[in-house]
Amino acid sequence: METGDIFELEFMYSQDDVNAFADITGDKNPVHLDEAYAAETVYKRPIIHGFLGGAVFSKILGNLFPGEGTVYLQQSMNFKRPMYTGVAYLAILTVVEVDKEKHKARIETKIIEAASGKPNLIGEATILNKIKIGV
Amino acid sequence: METGDIFELEFMYSQDDVNAFADITGDKNPVHLDEAYAAETVYKRPIIHGFLGGAVFSKILGNLFPGEGTVYLQQSMNFKRPMYTGVAYLAILTVVEVDKEKHKARIETKIIEAASGKPNLIGEATILNKIKIGV
Repeated sequence: METGDIFELEFMYSQDDVNAFADITGDKNPVHLDEAYAAETVYKRPIIHGFLGGAVFSKILGNLFPGEGTVYLQQSMNFKRPMYTGVAYLAILTVVEVDKEKHKARIETKIIEAASGKPNLIGEATILNKIKIGV
Repeated sequence: METGDIFELEFMYSQDDVNAFADITGDKNPVHLDEAYAAETVYKRPIIHGFLGGAVFSKILGNLFPGEGTVYLQQSMNFKRPMYTGVAYLAILTVVEVDKEKHKARIETKIIEAASGKPNLIGEATILNKIKIGV
Protein backbone atom coordinates (compact mmCIF):
# COMPACT_ATOMS: atom_id res chain seq x y z
CA MET A 1 0.00 0.00 0.00
CA GLU A 2 1.56 3.24 -1.20
CA THR A 3 0.43 6.87 -1.18
CA GLY A 4 -1.68 7.46 -4.27
CA ASP A 5 -2.89 3.86 -4.62
CA ILE A 6 -6.54 3.72 -5.66
CA PHE A 7 -9.06 0.90 -5.24
CA GLU A 8 -12.54 0.93 -6.74
CA LEU A 9 -15.50 -1.39 -6.24
CA GLU A 10 -18.98 -1.17 -7.72
CA PHE A 11 -21.81 -2.32 -5.47
CA MET A 12 -25.57 -2.23 -5.04
CA TYR A 13 -27.99 -2.98 -2.22
CA SER A 14 -31.49 -4.44 -2.45
CA GLN A 15 -34.52 -3.61 -0.31
CA ASP A 16 -34.11 -7.09 1.22
CA ASP A 17 -30.61 -6.05 2.36
CA VAL A 18 -32.02 -2.87 3.89
CA ASN A 19 -34.82 -4.79 5.63
CA ALA A 20 -32.31 -7.27 7.05
CA PHE A 21 -30.04 -4.43 8.21
CA ALA A 22 -33.02 -2.87 10.01
CA ASP A 23 -33.78 -6.18 11.72
CA ILE A 24 -30.19 -6.68 12.92
CA THR A 25 -29.52 -3.14 14.10
CA GLY A 26 -33.03 -2.29 15.31
CA ASP A 27 -32.96 0.86 13.13
CA LYS A 28 -36.54 0.59 11.84
CA ASN A 29 -36.90 4.22 10.81
CA PRO A 30 -39.73 4.06 8.20
CA VAL A 31 -37.74 6.25 5.83
CA HIS A 32 -35.70 3.09 5.13
CA LEU A 33 -38.54 0.57 5.04
CA ASP A 34 -41.90 2.07 4.11
CA GLU A 35 -42.49 3.16 0.50
CA ALA A 36 -45.63 5.15 1.31
CA TYR A 37 -43.91 6.96 4.20
CA ALA A 38 -40.79 7.70 2.17
CA ALA A 39 -42.91 9.06 -0.69
CA GLU A 40 -44.03 11.88 1.64
CA THR A 41 -40.45 12.86 2.54
CA VAL A 42 -37.83 14.78 0.57
CA TYR A 43 -36.34 11.42 -0.42
CA LYS A 44 -39.43 10.22 -2.36
CA ARG A 45 -38.28 6.59 -2.08
CA PRO A 46 -36.89 4.47 0.79
CA ILE A 47 -33.23 5.26 1.43
CA ILE A 48 -30.40 2.99 2.52
CA HIS A 49 -29.14 3.33 6.10
CA GLY A 50 -25.97 5.44 6.09
CA PHE A 51 -24.11 2.79 8.07
CA LEU A 52 -25.07 0.15 5.50
CA GLY A 53 -23.71 2.39 2.74
CA GLY A 54 -20.50 3.05 4.63
CA ALA A 55 -20.00 -0.62 5.50
CA VAL A 56 -18.60 -1.10 1.99
CA PHE A 57 -15.41 0.56 3.28
CA SER A 58 -15.11 -2.08 6.00
CA LYS A 59 -15.66 -4.83 3.44
CA ILE A 60 -12.94 -3.40 1.19
CA LEU A 61 -10.37 -2.54 3.87
CA GLY A 62 -10.76 -5.82 5.73
CA ASN A 63 -11.03 -8.17 2.77
CA LEU A 64 -9.70 -6.66 -0.45
CA PHE A 65 -7.53 -3.57 -0.03
CA PRO A 66 -5.22 -4.13 1.80
CA GLY A 67 -7.13 -7.16 3.20
CA GLU A 68 -6.17 -9.63 5.89
CA GLY A 69 -4.86 -8.14 9.10
CA THR A 70 -6.59 -4.76 8.85
CA VAL A 71 -7.41 -3.12 12.17
CA TYR A 72 -9.88 -0.27 11.77
CA LEU A 73 -8.78 2.75 13.80
CA GLN A 74 -10.97 5.58 12.52
CA GLN A 75 -13.67 6.33 9.99
CA SER A 76 -15.42 9.60 9.23
CA MET A 77 -18.50 9.88 7.04
CA ASN A 78 -20.06 12.98 5.53
CA PHE A 79 -23.40 12.03 4.05
CA LYS A 80 -23.77 14.18 0.93
CA ARG A 81 -26.73 12.61 -0.88
CA PRO A 82 -29.18 9.83 0.01
CA MET A 83 -28.48 6.33 -1.34
CA TYR A 84 -31.19 4.12 -2.83
CA THR A 85 -31.70 0.41 -3.39
CA GLY A 86 -31.23 -0.98 -6.90
CA VAL A 87 -28.79 1.80 -7.84
CA ALA A 88 -25.17 1.05 -8.75
CA TYR A 89 -22.63 2.90 -6.63
CA LEU A 90 -18.87 3.07 -6.83
CA ALA A 91 -16.67 3.02 -3.74
CA ILE A 92 -13.36 4.78 -4.41
CA LEU A 93 -10.52 4.51 -1.89
CA THR A 94 -7.40 6.62 -2.33
CA VAL A 95 -4.38 6.22 -0.08
CA VAL A 96 -3.50 9.68 1.29
CA GLU A 97 -0.65 8.86 3.68
CA VAL A 98 1.30 5.77 4.68
CA ASP A 99 3.34 5.44 7.87
CA LYS A 100 5.40 2.33 7.14
CA GLU A 101 7.06 2.27 10.56
CA LYS A 102 3.73 2.24 12.36
CA HIS A 103 2.05 0.11 9.66
CA LYS A 104 -0.70 2.71 9.36
CA ALA A 105 -2.46 4.27 6.40
CA ARG A 106 -4.87 7.16 5.99
CA ILE A 107 -7.27 6.61 3.13
CA GLU A 108 -9.84 8.89 1.50
CA THR A 109 -13.09 6.95 1.22
CA LYS A 110 -15.81 8.01 -1.21
CA ILE A 111 -19.05 6.63 -2.57
CA ILE A 112 -20.35 8.08 -5.81
CA GLU A 113 -23.31 7.11 -7.97
CA ALA A 114 -21.84 5.04 -10.79
CA ALA A 115 -24.01 6.59 -13.52
CA SER A 116 -23.79 10.28 -12.61
CA GLY A 117 -20.55 10.44 -10.64
CA LYS A 118 -22.30 12.54 -7.98
CA PRO A 119 -20.93 12.00 -4.45
CA ASN A 120 -23.08 10.27 -1.83
CA LEU A 121 -20.61 9.77 1.01
CA ILE A 122 -17.19 11.30 1.56
CA GLY A 123 -14.94 10.44 4.44
CA GLU A 124 -11.61 9.17 5.61
CA ALA A 125 -10.38 5.95 7.17
CA THR A 126 -7.30 5.23 9.25
CA ILE A 127 -6.16 1.63 9.45
CA LEU A 128 -3.35 -0.44 10.93
CA ASN A 129 -2.15 -3.54 9.11
CA LYS A 130 1.07 -5.22 10.23
CA ILE A 131 0.85 -7.84 7.45
CA LYS A 132 0.28 -5.53 4.48
CA ILE A 133 1.52 -2.01 5.29
CA GLY A 134 5.20 -1.13 5.52
CA VAL A 135 6.61 -4.63 5.24
CA MET B 1 -33.00 18.82 22.08
CA GLU B 2 -30.81 21.14 24.15
CA THR B 3 -27.07 21.38 24.74
CA GLY B 4 -26.15 19.00 27.55
CA ASP B 5 -29.02 16.57 26.95
CA ILE B 6 -27.90 12.96 27.41
CA PHE B 7 -29.46 9.78 26.06
CA GLU B 8 -28.30 6.27 27.01
CA LEU B 9 -29.19 2.87 25.61
CA GLU B 10 -27.88 -0.54 26.61
CA PHE B 11 -27.51 -3.04 23.78
CA MET B 12 -25.93 -6.37 22.85
CA TYR B 13 -25.28 -8.23 19.60
CA SER B 14 -25.29 -11.99 19.02
CA GLN B 15 -23.05 -14.02 16.70
CA ASP B 16 -26.16 -14.53 14.53
CA ASP B 17 -26.40 -10.73 14.15
CA VAL B 18 -22.73 -10.57 13.14
CA ASN B 19 -23.15 -13.44 10.65
CA ALA B 20 -26.20 -11.74 9.11
CA PHE B 21 -24.33 -8.41 8.91
CA ALA B 22 -21.49 -10.20 7.09
CA ASP B 23 -23.96 -11.69 4.62
CA ILE B 24 -25.62 -8.34 3.85
CA THR B 25 -22.48 -6.25 3.56
CA GLY B 26 -20.18 -8.88 2.08
CA ASP B 27 -17.67 -8.17 4.85
CA LYS B 28 -16.71 -11.79 5.55
CA ASN B 29 -13.42 -11.06 7.27
CA PRO B 30 -12.87 -14.26 9.33
CA VAL B 31 -11.95 -12.17 12.38
CA HIS B 32 -15.72 -11.58 12.68
CA LEU B 33 -16.93 -15.08 11.82
CA ASP B 34 -14.42 -17.80 12.57
CA GLU B 35 -13.70 -18.71 16.20
CA ALA B 36 -10.57 -20.70 15.39
CA TYR B 37 -9.16 -17.89 13.22
CA ALA B 38 -9.98 -15.21 15.79
CA ALA B 39 -8.33 -17.28 18.54
CA GLU B 40 -4.99 -16.82 16.73
CA THR B 41 -5.36 -13.01 16.59
CA VAL B 42 -4.89 -10.35 19.26
CA TYR B 43 -8.68 -10.38 19.72
CA LYS B 44 -8.83 -14.02 20.91
CA ARG B 45 -12.56 -14.23 20.02
CA PRO B 46 -14.62 -13.09 16.98
CA ILE B 47 -15.21 -9.33 17.07
CA ILE B 48 -18.22 -7.32 15.93
CA HIS B 49 -17.89 -5.30 12.71
CA GLY B 50 -17.18 -1.66 13.63
CA PHE B 51 -20.04 -0.49 11.43
CA LEU B 52 -22.44 -2.83 13.21
CA GLY B 53 -21.31 -1.39 16.54
CA GLY B 54 -21.67 2.18 15.32
CA ALA B 55 -25.10 1.53 13.78
CA VAL B 56 -26.57 1.88 17.27
CA PHE B 57 -26.10 5.66 16.82
CA SER B 58 -28.24 5.57 13.68
CA LYS B 59 -30.89 3.57 15.49
CA ILE B 60 -30.96 6.07 18.36
CA LEU B 61 -30.78 9.28 16.32
CA GLY B 62 -33.38 8.17 13.77
CA ASN B 63 -35.82 6.47 16.10
CA LEU B 64 -35.40 7.53 19.72
CA PHE B 65 -33.37 10.69 20.27
CA PRO B 66 -34.51 12.97 18.73
CA GLY B 67 -36.33 10.46 16.45
CA GLU B 68 -38.58 11.05 13.47
CA GLY B 69 -37.26 13.47 10.86
CA THR B 70 -33.55 13.01 11.57
CA VAL B 71 -31.26 13.54 8.59
CA TYR B 72 -27.76 12.21 9.22
CA LEU B 73 -25.14 14.71 8.06
CA GLN B 74 -21.91 13.42 9.60
CA GLN B 75 -20.54 10.68 11.81
CA SER B 76 -17.00 10.09 12.99
CA MET B 77 -15.88 6.92 14.72
CA ASN B 78 -12.67 6.25 16.61
CA PHE B 79 -12.46 2.56 17.35
CA LYS B 80 -10.80 2.31 20.76
CA ARG B 81 -11.36 -1.31 21.77
CA PRO B 82 -12.83 -4.34 19.98
CA MET B 83 -16.47 -5.21 20.64
CA TYR B 84 -17.65 -8.77 21.24
CA THR B 85 -20.91 -10.67 20.91
CA GLY B 86 -22.87 -11.44 24.06
CA VAL B 87 -21.41 -8.47 25.94
CA ALA B 88 -23.63 -5.62 27.19
CA TYR B 89 -22.61 -2.20 25.88
CA LEU B 90 -23.93 1.24 26.66
CA ALA B 91 -24.38 3.89 23.96
CA ILE B 92 -24.13 7.39 25.45
CA LEU B 93 -25.12 10.40 23.35
CA THR B 94 -24.45 13.89 24.69
CA VAL B 95 -25.64 17.01 22.85
CA VAL B 96 -22.64 19.30 22.39
CA GLU B 97 -24.14 22.12 20.31
CA VAL B 98 -27.58 23.04 18.97
CA ASP B 99 -28.21 25.46 16.10
CA LYS B 100 -31.92 26.10 16.45
CA GLU B 101 -32.16 28.30 13.36
CA LYS B 102 -30.63 25.62 11.14
CA HIS B 103 -32.32 22.76 13.07
CA LYS B 104 -28.93 21.12 13.52
CA ALA B 105 -27.25 19.44 16.45
CA ARG B 106 -23.74 18.17 17.10
CA ILE B 107 -23.72 15.17 19.41
CA GLU B 108 -20.89 13.28 21.11
CA THR B 109 -21.45 9.57 20.50
CA LYS B 110 -19.79 6.96 22.70
CA ILE B 111 -20.00 3.22 23.25
CA ILE B 112 -18.65 1.87 26.51
CA GLU B 113 -18.68 -1.62 27.97
CA ALA B 114 -21.54 -1.62 30.46
CA ALA B 115 -19.69 -3.64 33.12
CA SER B 116 -16.28 -1.94 33.06
CA GLY B 117 -17.11 1.49 31.64
CA LYS B 118 -14.14 1.19 29.26
CA PRO B 119 -14.65 2.99 25.93
CA ASN B 120 -15.02 0.98 22.73
CA LEU B 121 -16.01 3.66 20.24
CA ILE B 122 -15.85 7.44 20.51
CA GLY B 123 -17.11 9.80 17.86
CA GLU B 124 -19.37 12.65 16.94
CA ALA B 125 -22.57 12.96 14.93
CA THR B 126 -24.11 15.97 13.21
CA ILE B 127 -27.80 15.78 12.41
CA LEU B 128 -30.56 17.93 10.95
CA ASN B 129 -34.11 17.55 12.23
CA LYS B 130 -36.72 20.13 11.26
CA ILE B 131 -39.41 18.42 13.36
CA LYS B 132 -37.51 18.08 16.63
CA ILE B 133 -34.66 20.62 16.77
CA GLY B 134 -35.25 24.34 17.28
CA VAL B 135 -39.01 24.34 16.99
